[in-house]
Amino acid sequence: MSYHDESDEYPDGAVRLRNPNIELMDQDILYHLALGSGSHDLHQMFGDVKFICMGGTPKRMEQFANFIMDEIGYKLPAGTTLLDISQYSYRYSMYKVGPVLSISHGMGIPSVGILLHEVIKLMYHARVRDPVFFRLGTCGGIGLDGGHLVITDEAVDGMMRPYLELPVLGKLVQRPSKLDVELAKELQSLSTQDDPFETHVGRTMCTYDFYEGQGRLDGAFCDYTEKEKLEFLHKIHDNNILNMEMESLAFAALTHHAGIRAAVICVTLLNRLNGDQVASSKEVLNEWQNRPQAIVARYIKKHMGMTGPAPRPPPPGPKTVVNSKKLKFVREESQSYE
Amino acid sequence: MSYHDESDEYPDGAVRLRNPNIELMDQDILYHLALGSGSHDLHQMFGDVKFICMGGTPKRMEQFANFIMDEIGYKLPAGTTLLDISQYSYRYSMYKVGPVLSISHGMGIPSVGILLHEVIKLMYHARVRDPVFFRLGTCGGIGLDGGHLVITDEAVDGMMRPYLELPVLGKLVQRPSKLDVELAKELQSLSTQDDPFETHVGRTMCTYDFYEGQGRLDGAFCDYTEKEKLEFLHKIHDNNILNMEMESLAFAALTHHAGIRAAVICVTLLNRLNGDQVASSKEVLNEWQNRPQAIVARYIKKHMGMTGPAPRPPPPGPKTVVNSKKLKFVREESQSYE
Repeated sequence: MSYHDESDEYPDGAVRLRNPNIELMDQDILYHLALGSGSHDLHQMFGDVKFICMGGTPKRMEQFANFIMDEIGYKLPAGTTLLDISQYSYRYSMYKVGPVLSISHGMGIPSVGILLHEVIKLMYHARVRDPVFFRLGTCGGIGLDGGHLVITDEAVDGMMRPYLELPVLGKLVQRPSKLDVELAKELQSLSTQDDPFETHVGRTMCTYDFYEGQGRLDGAFCDYTEKEKLEFLHKIHDNNILNMEMESLAFAALTHHAGIRAAVICVTLLNRLNGDQVASSKEVLNEWQNRPQAIVARYIKKHMGMTGPAPRPPPPGPKTVVNSKKLKFVREESQSYE
Repeated sequence: MSYHDESDEYPDGAVRLRNPNIELMDQDILYHLALGSGSHDLHQMFGDVKFICMGGTPKRMEQFANFIMDEIGYKLPAGTTLLDISQYSYRYSMYKVGPVLSISHGMGIPSVGILLHEVIKLMYHARVRDPVFFRLGTCGGIGLDGGHLVITDEAVDGMMRPYLELPVLGKLVQRPSKLDVELAKELQSLSTQDDPFETHVGRTMCTYDFYEGQGRLDGAFCDYTEKEKLEFLHKIHDNNILNMEMESLAFAALTHHAGIRAAVICVTLLNRLNGDQVASSKEVLNEWQNRPQAIVARYIKKHMGMTGPAPRPPPPGPKTVVNSKKLKFVREESQSYE
């Protein structure tokens, strides 16, 4: 079965939910984003979104929002600044720059999973067509030195299984953790000879833990030897795993299940075959972390047809809050959830 | 084997690491806390800590720090304010109020797991004796209406298995997710007849997902009916599970493995047997969220022997940064990790 046979999109490219309950609900509260379908005009606010970019920390995704604003030449009206749309959730941060959303996902599969459920629903309510999701992150390289880019074609768990396994109503459900291979290749093709880094496409191991889960020797617990650690890392290297991080499995499985094209692009901070400690300077690390952003910016500009002048922001539109009472309720609910 | 037979403490109560590598390292960088054993005098900074309190969001844990400051009568010197000790990590927030640490752990098992590895190492470097760890959170009640307190005696996963299962070097490791029963009972005993809530001790189901993982009908995906959902919730209710949340399994398993006494105290926001949506007002929800904090404050005051006057802060001591060059390095490293 090909990717598009499994797709869950409507013929017009709008995001379809695999949940018949949502359209029957009076309002759908996106608890962890502090948004709601009854309190906000989500189509008005987000209907023009095309590129959803996620990364770990609020700070980095605020940086990315400002970077992409420069890249696509998006001008804010005088006297305005970017706003963290989800500031009242106290969990994720979300910035919007024209067709680009820049959102922090926190650390680990559960945190990115909650966000994906709510952003997929947000795309549905906003009637967005053909959105593309990106995760921009850092990772440990397996056989790759620091500074390389790895675009994931398949995520595997710590047992090298290519699916996300999740208990649902007491039964284990398995979801294939595939990413869009054409998208990965297109992103790789946007890397040029002049770039001071190589861009690889390959498999990514996604773990539930940073220390023991990634075979580090410096956690609070360590029951294995350095020799056993290296045997494991060489074994996964022999299985064409290029890097390790903590979110790709859910990112791949949930976007694939929703029929949404998605890519995971991470920069390596070190070669785990050589050690556990990052030894590069701040300047070098900062430059490395700009690399996934640069590739995604090239993709966005290409698909915005940016050979002509940069796009201007739309004129001020109608108000987006449609129900103040419901808005107050949504903010209150959102603040109460962890 | 009793709890203390398995303990991993030294006879003097200091926290011992189950990792022989740490004491051989030149410096141990706590990446996600922006602290290091070579850059900071961790004993000087944290040696007096006794009570480590964790909860989901930075905002709530800053609130708790201010609340416990009032409760224990801790006075800051004029012209000073609380500082987020881990501000340069851009992930967790950490506040210190005398013997109390108040730290945000984010959402989900991986996020709280990374934090626990680093806080356990912090306790070791600081030579803290007999620390007690608390998680203060919110949860869905199973057969309990909103506003009740649940103190966990055992955490189970979504398959009702009482252990944390984690792939380590390609093999599945299982760690019992037990909490200190005596501590749970003592906390329960601090609830009084005058409290406008009941305090229960029982089992908690900890999931890797908020929507499908907890049987909600309002995620991006839902392949089951409301009837199947309710059958599942009634089944776990019949198995003495009182509530559902997303961190207790790792919290219990890692503290138990480290021989550290720990408790998980959550307030229910709703009875999941009756629905998925929280319908209470902000005022009610805020009051509910103060309840775990109130019980933990009573415990802390009791164990500080607070029948006499409130303790005064110590006089200004020696500087805590012991190596500025290493401090710069630690901050840089910390900013690069997700």
